[in-house]
Amino acid sequence: MPKKSALSELKRRLGGSVATDEDSLYWKSFDSSKLAFRIEAVIQPKNDKEVGPVLKLANQYKIPVTTRGAGTCLTGAASPVKGGWVLDLSGLNRIRIDKETGMAYVGPGAIIAKIQQRAERLGWYYPPDPSSKKFCTIGGNIACNAGGMKGAKYGVTRDYVYALEGFLPTGEFVRWGADVRKYVSGYNMRDLWIGSEGTLGVITKAVLKLIPKPPCKWTLLAAFKNESRALAAVRALVRQRVIPSILEFLDSESVLCAESRTGKPLYPGGGRSAVLLLELDGDKKSLEVDRKVVLAWAKDRATRYSETYDAEEAEKLWQVRRQGSPAMYELGNTKLNEDIVVPLRNQGALMKFVMQLKRESGLAIPTFGHAADGNFHVNIMFDRGNKVQEKAAKKAVLKLMKTVVELGGAITGEHGIGLAKSPFMAIQHNKAEIAAMRAIKNVLDPNDILNPGKIFDRYVVWDKIPEKVKLPWDHK
Amino acid sequence: MPKKSALSELKRRLGGSVATDEDSLYWKSFDSSKLAFRIEAVIQPKNDKEVGPVLKLANQYKIPVTTRGAGTCLTGAASPVKGGWVLDLSGLNRIRIDKETGMAYVGPGAIIAKIQQRAERLGWYYPPDPSSKKFCTIGGNIACNAGGMKGAKYGVTRDYVYALEGFLPTGEFVRWGADVRKYVSGYNMRDLWIGSEGTLGVITKAVLKLIPKPPCKWTLLAAFKNESRALAAVRALVRQRVIPSILEFLDSESVLCAESRTGKPLYPGGGRSAVLLLELDGDKKSLEVDRKVVLAWAKDRATRYSETYDAEEAEKLWQVRRQGSPAMYELGNTKLNEDIVVPLRNQGALMKFVMQLKRESGLAIPTFGHAADGNFHVNIMFDRGNKVQEKAAKKAVLKLMKTVVELGGAITGEHGIGLAKSPFMAIQHNKAEIAAMRAIKNVLDPNDILNPGKIFDRYVVWDKIPEKVKLPWDHK
Repeated sequence: MPKKSALSELKRRLGGSVATDEDSLYWKSFDSSKLAFRIEAVIQPKNDKEVGPVLKLANQYKIPVTTRGAGTCLTGAASPVKGGWVLDLSGLNRIRIDKETGMAYVGPGAIIAKIQQRAERLGWYYPPDPSSKKFCTIGGNIACNAGGMKGAKYGVTRDYVYALEGFLPTGEFVRWGADVRKYVSGYNMRDLWIGSEGTLGVITKAVLKLIPKPPCKWTLLAAFKNESRALAAVRALVRQRVIPSILEFLDSESVLCAESRTGKPLYPGGGRSAVLLLELDGDKKSLEVDRKVVLAWAKDRATRYSETYDAEEAEKLWQVRRQGSPAMYELGNTKLNEDIVVPLRNQGALMKFVMQLKRESGLAIPTFGHAADGNFHVNIMFDRGNKVQEKAAKKAVLKLMKTVVELGGAITGEHGIGLAKSPFMAIQHNKAEIAAMRAIKNVLDPNDILNPGKIFDRYVVWDKIPEKVKLPWDHK
Repeated sequence: MPKKSALSELKRRLGGSVATDEDSLYWKSFDSSKLAFRIEAVIQPKNDKEVGPVLKLANQYKIPVTTRGAGTCLTGAASPVKGGWVLDLSGLNRIRIDKETGMAYVGPGAIIAKIQQRAERLGWYYPPDPSSKKFCTIGGNIACNAGGMKGAKYGVTRDYVYALEGFLPTGEFVRWGADVRKYVSGYNMRDLWIGSEGTLGVITKAVLKLIPKPPCKWTLLAAFKNESRALAAVRALVRQRVIPSILEFLDSESVLCAESRTGKPLYPGGGRSAVLLLELDGDKKSLEVDRKVVLAWAKDRATRYSETYDAEEAEKLWQVRRQGSPAMYELGNTKLNEDIVVPLRNQGALMKFVMQLKRESGLAIPTFGHAADGNFHVNIMFDRGNKVQEKAAKKAVLKLMKTVVELGGAITGEHGIGLAKSPFMAIQHNKAEIAAMRAIKNVLDPNDILNPGKIFDRYVVWDKIPEKVKLPWDHK
C-alpha cells in the first residue's frame, strides 16, 4: 500500500505538523464552495522548510496535495477534489514592512486586513481588497490574483507582487524575482504562478509593493432612474478622466435587497433605482478638483445623491452595498455569484442582457459590480431542490458565459476557474490556448499532484450537494 | 533538401512578403548588438494572418525563426544566432487609441514614441520610455519587458499591457487576456510571453493601458560631493515618500564624460561631483507640495542645484544625462552596458563595489542609472583588440554579476538575457528554476524554432566580432 507508507513517512518526518483526526480532516475537506472531499492528512507546516519535503514525498508517491489558506475561495479552487493531503499554510503568517521602501515581506498565511493595518500604521497602503479581506490570506489572493473594488484605479493583486519564493510540485526550492522594481532575468515565472490557483507551485514567501497611503477620502452615493442611466453615467465620468478609487454599481434588484434588509428606503419616496457608490481618494487638493467634477456630474445625471468626507457618514452610505448581498438569500437559498467582466463599452449591453435573462429565466438575478472595471457580480438566485429553478439557473449561467465572451469579456474577472467555472473554459479559450496551458501544467507537475482536477478538468458543481456548515465569513 | 523546399513553399504562399536578396538578408542579420548571423529569408508580413503560415511551415521544416522589430536590442535577443528566417514585424504598426477608456490597440511594429504622441494628443499618456523610444517598437518592448527612466513611479512595460494576441511557435492563433481591467481565466500566459524575448510566441496585437497625461512637470538638477552622498540623498527622499517620475543618478565619471563633450563644467568651479536629475510630474497643486519637500532636501544635501518648470530650461539640465553616454566612447572603443539592479538598501554598497572595480580593473566604468529603481547602467569601457583590457573587462563583468546577485539583485533590470547575459543565468538562477523555464520552452516549442539559442544556451559574445555599421540610433 504505497499511500499508507507515504503517510507514515510524512508523519515520521513532519511529526507535529501532520493531523489525521476526523475533525481536522473534515474542516479542511472543503473551501467556501462547501464542496467536500475525503482527504487523508492535513499538514500545517511550522516553517517554510517543511514544505519541500511534503511535496517531494507527495511527488514520489503520487499523492494529490491541495494548498490552502483560510479557504474563502468561492470556486472550489481550494477544495481537495482528488483527496490526498491538504497543505494548510495559514500558520506561515509573518508580516514585515520595510518602512523606508514600502515593501512588505509576508508569509502566505498573512491575512489581507492585517497586512493593510500594519502598512497603514506606517503610512503605507496595500490597495487590493477582496470582500473577504478580514479572513483571506495573501497566499490565496496571489494564487487567484484576487481583485476587489479598487481595480480601476489601483489594479489587482498581480500589480502588487514584486517577488515570490516557494517550491515546485517536485519539491524543489525556487525564487521568482527579487525585492527590486525591475527584473527581467529569464521567464517571468512569478506572473505565471500568480493566478494559477495553486496548480504550479507552493508560495512560501512574497514581497509586496505598497504605495503611500492616500491621506483623504470622499464618498458619494448616487441614485439613478434605471440601470442604463447609471451605466451611461459611468461612461460619462470615465470620459472626464476621473478615476475613482471605488465605483460600485448596484442594479435596482440589489438595491431592493438592501432596502428590505435595512427596512427603509434608500431615499424616502425615491422609488426603484439603480445606484452608484463612488469613492475618491488622494491628497485633499487634487481630490477637491475631482470632487467638483463629480458633483456636477451627479447633479446632471442622478435623481438623488449624498456626499461626505466623514468616515462615519460614509459608512451609512455604504449600507446599501454591504446589506445587499446577505439579503439576496431571501430570493433563493442558493447563489451563483458569477464574477464576469466585459469591456467598458459593453457594460450597457451586458446589463440589457441581464435584464432580459431575469425575465426569461424567471429567477431573481440581483447584479452589482465594479463598474469602472467592467467587472460585475451577476448573482443568479434559485432554490436548490426546486427542479424547475435548478434547470433555469443552469441554463442562465451557460447563456451568461456565452454572452460575456461574445461581448469581448471574460467568464471570470476576479474569482478564477477552480471547479465552478471549469465547464466554461472552452467558451473562453480556443483549443490551442487550453493545450498550451495544460502543457505547462503537465511539464511542471508531471505526476499531477498539485491541486489536481482544477481549471482544466470539467467538474459540474451542480451535481454535488454542498456541506451545510456556517463559515466565519458567511453572511449572518 | 528540406530547407530549400521550405523556402520555396514560403515564397509560394507569402510571395511579396518574402525577401532573399543579399542586402535584405544582411540588414536583418543582426540587431543593435551587431552580432551578425547568416540567414536565408526575411519575411515582412503585410497583415497578422500571414504570421501563422510562416510559423507552421517553419515548425514543419524545423527552420529557426527570429522575430524582430527595429532591432534596437543590445543583448542580441533579436540576432538570428541559429540562422533560418527573420520575421520582421515592423510593418504591422497600426495604432488606435480609444479616447474614452484610454486603451491603445497597437500592432507589434508600432514605434513607442508614436504611441506616446498619439496618446498625448488625446490627453492620455504611455509612461514606459526606453532610451531608444524614437526607433524601438512595442513588440520588442513587450518581448523584453522594456523599462526606462520612469520605473519607480510608473512601472515598466508589463504594467501597461492588458492583452496580447498572436501565434504559438506551432503557428496556432491565441489570445491572452482582453481589453478589460480584470481577467483571471486560466493561466496568465500574457505575462509569460512578456519578457520571454520572442522565444514563446509571436505577438501580432497588443492592448495597452494608458493613464491620464500628467499636466505638469518640474525638473531639478542637483550636484553632490560624491556618489555615496548622492545615493544617501536618494534614500532620504524615498523615506519622505516623494516618488519622482524620474530620478537619474550619474557618477562623477559619467559627469566628466558629459563635461568633456559639452566643453563646459556642470557648475562653474564646481569640481568633480555626482549628480541626481529629478523630475516631478502631476497636477500643479500636488506637484507644488512635493516640490517644496524636494527643494528643502536639495538645499540640505546638494552642493549646487538648479530647478525649472520650463521645458526648454529643463532640456539644458538634461544635457549632462544626454551627452554622457556618447562621450564614453572616448574612454574605450567598446562599451559593456550592464543594466543590473539591486534593492534600494544596497545601492550604496553597489556603488562602493563599482568604485573598487574601477581601481582594480584599471578600466573606465562610468555608471549611471535609475536610482529610485535600483537599476544602474554600469558601463565597462575597453578597447577591443587590447588584450589586457579585454581580459580585465571580462573579469570585471563576471565579478559585477556575482556581486549583484550577492546584493540580492538581478543581472538584468531592463535589457533581458538574449545572448549577452546567457553566461550569467546560472549565477542568477538555481538549477530547478532554469529547468522549469527550459521545460516551458521545450513543451511550447517542441522543435525549438522560435528564437532558438537565446536565454538558456551559453553564448560568449566576446568571441564574435561585431559588424562595423552605424545604426540610426547609434550615438553620433
